[in-house]
Amino acid sequence: MASNSFGTIFRITTFGESHGKAIGVVIDGCPAGLKISLNEIQAALDLRAPGRNPYTSPRKEKDQADILSGVFEGKTTGAPICIIIPNKDADSSKYEPIKDILRPGHANFTYTKKYGCFDYRGGGRSSARETACRVAAGAVARKFLESQGVSFYAYLKELGSVCMESNLEYAENIRGNIYESDVFCPDKASSAKMQSHLLALKESGESTGGLVELQVHSLPVGLGDPVYEKLEAKLASAMMSLPASKGFEIGSGFDATSMSGSEHNDCFYSDGDLVRTHSNYAGGTLGGISTGMPLSCRVAFKPTSSITNEQITCDYSGNEVRFNLPKGSRHDPCVAIRAVPVVEAMGALVLADTLLMNRCARL
Amino acid sequence: MASNSFGTIFRITTFGESHGKAIGVVIDGCPAGLKISLNEIQAALDLRAPGRNPYTSPRKEKDQADILSGVFEGKTTGAPICIIIPNKDADSSKYEPIKDILRPGHANFTYTKKYGCFDYRGGGRSSARETACRVAAGAVARKFLESQGVSFYAYLKELGSVCMESNLEYAENIRGNIYESDVFCPDKASSAKMQSHLLALKESGESTGGLVELQVHSLPVGLGDPVYEKLEAKLASAMMSLPASKGFEIGSGFDATSMSGSEHNDCFYSDGDLVRTHSNYAGGTLGGISTGMPLSCRVAFKPTSSITNEQITCDYSGNEVRFNLPKGSRHDPCVAIRAVPVVEAMGALVLADTLLMNRCARL
Amino acid sequence: MASNSFGTIFRITTFGESHGKAIGVVIDGCPAGLKISLNEIQAALDLRAPGRNPYTSPRKEKDQADILSGVFEGKTTGAPICIIIPNKDADSSKYEPIKDILRPGHANFTYTKKYGCFDYRGGGRSSARETACRVAAGAVARKFLESQGVSFYAYLKELGSVCMESNLEYAENIRGNIYESDVFCPDKASSAKMQSHLLALKESGESTGGLVELQVHSLPVGLGDPVYEKLEAKLASAMMSLPASKGFEIGSGFDATSMSGSEHNDCFYSDGDLVRTHSNYAGGTLGGISTGMPLSCRVAFKPTSSITNEQITCDYSGNEVRFNLPKGSRHDPCVAIRAVPVVEAMGALVLADTLLMNRCARL
Amino acid sequence: MASNSFGTIFRITTFGESHGKAIGVVIDGCPAGLKISLNEIQAALDLRAPGRNPYTSPRKEKDQADILSGVFEGKTTGAPICIIIPNKDADSSKYEPIKDILRPGHANFTYTKKYGCFDYRGGGRSSARETACRVAAGAVARKFLESQGVSFYAYLKELGSVCMESNLEYAENIRGNIYESDVFCPDKASSAKMQSHLLALKESGESTGGLVELQVHSLPVGLGDPVYEKLEAKLASAMMSLPASKGFEIGSGFDATSMSGSEHNDCFYSDGDLVRTHSNYAGGTLGGISTGMPLSCRVAFKPTSSITNEQITCDYSGNEVRFNLPKGSRHDPCVAIRAVPVVEAMGALVLADTLLMNRCARL
Repeated sequence: MASNSFGTIFRITTFGESHGKAIGVVIDGCPAGLKISLNEIQAALDLRAPGRNPYTSPRKEKDQADILSGVFEGKTTGAPICIIIPNKDADSSKYEPIKDILRPGHANFTYTKKYGCFDYRGGGRSSARETACRVAAGAVARKFLESQGVSFYAYLKELGSVCMESNLEYAENIRGNIYESDVFCPDKASSAKMQSHLLALKESGESTGGLVELQVHSLPVGLGDPVYEKLEAKLASAMMSLPASKGFEIGSGFDATSMSGSEHNDCFYSDGDLVRTHSNYAGGTLGGISTGMPLSCRVAFKPTSSITNEQITCDYSGNEVRFNLPKGSRHDPCVAIRAVPVVEAMGALVLADTLLMNRCARL
Repeated sequence: MASNSFGTIFRITTFGESHGKAIGVVIDGCPAGLKISLNEIQAALDLRAPGRNPYTSPRKEKDQADILSGVFEGKTTGAPICIIIPNKDADSSKYEPIKDILRPGHANFTYTKKYGCFDYRGGGRSSARETACRVAAGAVARKFLESQGVSFYAYLKELGSVCMESNLEYAENIRGNIYESDVFCPDKASSAKMQSHLLALKESGESTGGLVELQVHSLPVGLGDPVYEKLEAKLASAMMSLPASKGFEIGSGFDATSMSGSEHNDCFYSDGDLVRTHSNYAGGTLGGISTGMPLSCRVAFKPTSSITNEQITCDYSGNEVRFNLPKGSRHDPCVAIRAVPVVEAMGALVLADTLLMNRCARL
Repeated sequence: MASNSFGTIFRITTFGESHGKAIGVVIDGCPAGLKISLNEIQAALDLRAPGRNPYTSPRKEKDQADILSGVFEGKTTGAPICIIIPNKDADSSKYEPIKDILRPGHANFTYTKKYGCFDYRGGGRSSARETACRVAAGAVARKFLESQGVSFYAYLKELGSVCMESNLEYAENIRGNIYESDVFCPDKASSAKMQSHLLALKESGESTGGLVELQVHSLPVGLGDPVYEKLEAKLASAMMSLPASKGFEIGSGFDATSMSGSEHNDCFYSDGDLVRTHSNYAGGTLGGISTGMPLSCRVAFKPTSSITNEQITCDYSGNEVRFNLPKGSRHDPCVAIRAVPVVEAMGALVLADTLLMNRCARL
Repeated sequence: MASNSFGTIFRITTFGESHGKAIGVVIDGCPAGLKISLNEIQAALDLRAPGRNPYTSPRKEKDQADILSGVFEGKTTGAPICIIIPNKDADSSKYEPIKDILRPGHANFTYTKKYGCFDYRGGGRSSARETACRVAAGAVARKFLESQGVSFYAYLKELGSVCMESNLEYAENIRGNIYESDVFCPDKASSAKMQSHLLALKESGESTGGLVELQVHSLPVGLGDPVYEKLEAKLASAMMSLPASKGFEIGSGFDATSMSGSEHNDCFYSDGDLVRTHSNYAGGTLGGISTGMPLSCRVAFKPTSSITNEQITCDYSGNEVRFNLPKGSRHDPCVAIRAVPVVEAMGALVLADTLLMNRCARL
């Protein structure tokens, strides 16, 4: 079943396994006339790339992208844009000995049962490496959105039990601050705490979960199509398609369950030509359509499944197996960190699609 | 933009406004040969219908369904099944005086800005009344799933600050217990507390949020298609397309953010012919594909936006307006209650679609 | 498999069997703000309705449509438009005795083999009655296209061996002339010949094929999306989804196979602000995108399969059966006649969809 | 608008321009467990490649494919298969001088008007070079179909006024005979005549059209989904999405217009366990669903638009331009020849998709 595409008008299709020849993405439906350069795509990929600092996986993938099609004389032509990223530092030898083990928290068991086979090298298609393709495509979507005046950023809000302390106010250079932090948390004190926590985790062979928030500003009113293409439904689908994501919420989210109507209702007021709301528990949409207020949503990520501590599980023959990855294995102690640019990318893809869909709403 | 369809192989398209002539649904892609009767569909609709007890909206809609097509001699034929539900108790007179007011928490502002017009009568297309169509279609999907051995149920887990006390263990008659409760909470003591809380809320002109859980049992391994049609991504999209939903989580959900890898990893063991996991923090999927363990996910609903307490908002001309619905207005004090059969229906639609998609996974 | 929808942005979903309670269509994605009345839809349906004159089926279906949703205060709202047409003159008794016979040229054999069952009454879902829904939806699409300055018409060009004599030049009232003819042929002399031929056919218990041409004028340049959504590919799909259609061609069509390049190439010239071509063998598209020249395509229809002459076929048990429909059975001697408004409707649906798709081509 | 994908369950997405870095295709939804090798794909590509003999374009593209993903240990894994074909012999210098000319029969005018820009080098995305990607994907689809017992072939039936003389009877080595002919015509005498005709055409600077027939054998009964995914509708869409195609017909095709019902109706008879028809005017489908009889359809191709004879056209500024390609320019005198493997590939893609769709028809 074809299931590697996302979006309706601005649609991506990704391909490639973690240890195959290359991974890549085809972006179909990007409007013609958009200025885009390889540098801009590469810059986005660099933020997600592993091995940047001690807090992420040491795999040495440069993630060097190449644009194969769809861009001519520096601009998109309306033709599909294929971006390809060769795999350079794949080391499959470590996967051969453990290929018969049902790895806890991993997808090898379910893939094998579904397809009758599994490319076990580096997790094959189930690897989070696939998200590099989303980031490359997201960079194009971001460029399109910026041409329409929309701005946005994601950041790490919680890492394990460490929560970002200050509330994030929108600031001119917020995105710069986020990506200056090794853990993509714009608050310096919180970032430092998170980093200490991570070093301790690595030492102990453990991993932790985290929370990523996406904020979108200057979104026009009217994006999102009732009833099954509501903006939050598309965002939820986008975020829950990410490896390791366990939850999605918008605006008040799960806190809404214990609020009262008069607390939660955001009352409208007129602000010059704009209509705004005093509070924003809605989180930027009503009835699945953007209100013009900032959009804010959050994605919960589980702790990395690859840990070096011993676990007792079984193999495909049903035999109990004691199993641990060797110390120094290449994995992220917290997948939520490198998920930050990915959440941002998925947000961009949803918004680009929604913005184009909205062009057909009226006569 | 066509956006009123849900699903790929087992696909529904809904239509109709709250106060129009009728609402309805076309189910396309239901396999031929499935026994289904109007009674079964009606029974599902009755659970969602308003006016059943003091805890829901007093609108007197019988929601009397009619099957127009696709069923012959008691069985589906493979042709599209159209089910129609006429609107009988629509009273639009109350909406005329407030049609120029930007109602807090409602979608009239965003619809109007998007489309340049709005059928304000009863909320038009943005009304939760649309969900009756999902329930009707869900009853057909449920029948299909039962023919494949899959069972499932949803229930109210939290109403405002009242949480269900006992943990829900799977029991033979769990679904019976749920629907015996006026608030769809299978624990009698908790149900009673919730009902008291609701009566107090109604008295005070307020509303509250709530939390609905969906549990699926006996799901085969292998459902869900990587990477953008992951089972949890489809469920998230389904649930976040519901009116008033603010969050979705699966398994450990948002709690996962502060867990460690060794805590969260569900270890496998062999149980006769089956493979199972000791814990189930995953919530029934790995890599977006069902594991065969019970699937559990939760949906957060905001408090009903329609309250009788006064609110200060503005109208389309930007003038401040003091506004309250009259006491006794027809609304639910907590939308999460009647959302229970709707969450169940959306779960059924996702699973039916996923199960059919899985038929194409292998040679 | 969901397969009863057509179109991407302007999408229809049809439902209903020939002898069920009703047939109908949901139009999803029609832009908001379009003026449309039931009368306009009914007028289109009346052209396709049977029993209008001696040259079509005597079934007395008034095809009285009702709009259930999506129109408010005389205009579309952006919500799905459901139009329903109850079946009034269904007489299933004639189908009971022949339900075990594999009817030559009919779909009962293939439906039964595919689905394991068949609603044999009046051909069930395989009946050409389904095309009434296309006509109803086409009337809405037509209204949208007219608001964008596009005009078009279909007509009967050949009926059996009778070809329309004069070449059709575009004329102000061409559509009026077409629908004044009982066989939808705008040339009076040809129309008369066709009618004589039909009366002879009816007498002899026979049927014949026919050819329908669609012409579209004032189409903007740029409609159609390469490479798999080329305008002619969408038109071909639309027309070949019609019952009894056996071929589709655009512009030069099958004649192109024996032409030379310098004959076939339409040379461009500048005509004020417009670019035109001297000839129009292309038929209105190049590279799958409209050129701004008139679009012309043709659809070949086979002779009606229901004839009153005896045929020797077999039943589901494999026994040879001699079989003829009684004289006076309700069928069209030539399905191509009533196909004229259907071809027009399908053309309108394709163009409406394509026109909306084109809104997303550029930045 | 995303428009570079074809198929629903077995879906391809192509990318790349004629003179860009590479062209390629992503095949999504191919069932897991299918044996496929690069050699098999390359063999298919070699049949379509230019420069094989004097009757096709002299462009020296080896069309050397590479499989980037989706195949592991010689078998498909269910993950998307990306096949890439670098462009090696692109010579864009010839296109620079003529980039402002509206080339008769070409798509540069319509692309430029639609997108506001055009990658003119070698026709960019509008080039027939894109069809190499269809052939690569078709080779995979073919392998899948063969595993299900389906066999098929296409061949050149008419080249200009030269028609194949003998009727094609199904023979064991028919496909071998076809591909032994330099013009893909299995009848040796006809093939020779066509070749002579082509040499004369080349000499005179002209081109011609042609007709390609597709035959499919051993197709199971039941493929094709009513009503908008009828098998012939999907085939028509597939074939009319090919560059230069002007018409499609199935079975009796355009001849049906002048046949009578008793002539055209194919009568059924029982042949052991099978049901067959004496004649096969239907061409293999009834009601859009395969009958089990051989499927036969034809595609009409216009003459190649690139000719070396002078033409008078205009440029984007509206000035009249006299224009001819230099003698010896790289083009095919008849595009229908190299279209043969492409028609075969499109047939394979449609049938693979339809076959998988059919798995969901029944309970």
